[in-house]
Amino acid sequence: MEKIVRQSMLYDFYGELLTEHQKSIYEDVVVNDLSYSEIARLNGISRQGVYDMVKRCDKILEDYEEKLHLVHKFLSAKDKLKEITKLTAVMKAENHDGSLNPYIDEILLKSEEIFKEL
Amino acid sequence: MEKIVRQSMLYDFYGELLTEHQKSIYEDVVVNDLSYSEIARLNGISRQGVYDMVKRCDKILEDYEEKLHLVHKFLSAKDKLKEITKLTAVMKAENHDGSLNPYIDEILLKSEEIFKEL
Repeated sequence: MEKIVRQSMLYDFYGELLTEHQKSIYEDVVVNDLSYSEIARLNGISRQGVYDMVKRCDKILEDYEEKLHLVHKFLSAKDKLKEITKLTAVMKAENHDGSLNPYIDEILLKSEEIFKEL
Repeated sequence: MEKIVRQSMLYDFYGELLTEHQKSIYEDVVVNDLSYSEIARLNGISRQGVYDMVKRCDKILEDYEEKLHLVHKFLSAKDKLKEITKLTAVMKAENHDGSLNPYIDEILLKSEEIFKEL
């Protein structure tokens, strides 16, 4: 997995456990895609300071993941939800008289809701 | 929701973020259903000490929930998974020629897997 994708997922799950200052800088790197130099200038700290802060946040977030495994659990759940979505499409194609379509649609809807919430 | 059920769910999600000592005592209360007196005796501390520790852990775990909302998210996902399970049962009853049963079974299986993992 690309580093930024991993950081972004860790931030999604555990970002609220960082301090406001850590969050602000980490979010600028991971979500807003600013350069270290830009962030340094905006926050009146050195580029090295930004680098150290990001590294520290990576470590904090990875430590939470090591204990709680939420990213792992949610990725696995999301994979399975995608499989359910695929199965509903196949079923609709196979359900020639359309009699089961309302149930299939309902399953698809619920799966999508779960997917969005996780 | 009954207090012990809430505590048990909070412990499931965030228990790993407690110290070993906190975990041991909280688990004796919430999972092993020991009395405060028993736990006090087993740990060589006062009954009041156990009470304070449990209250402190409740607060720590509720603070994590307030930030991360995992119990809330997972309960909502589990409710929806139960609805998917019900829909698969209805579909099987309605799918008179049984042609879609393999897909329905696969959806049921995936839903159960997600349910167990969350």
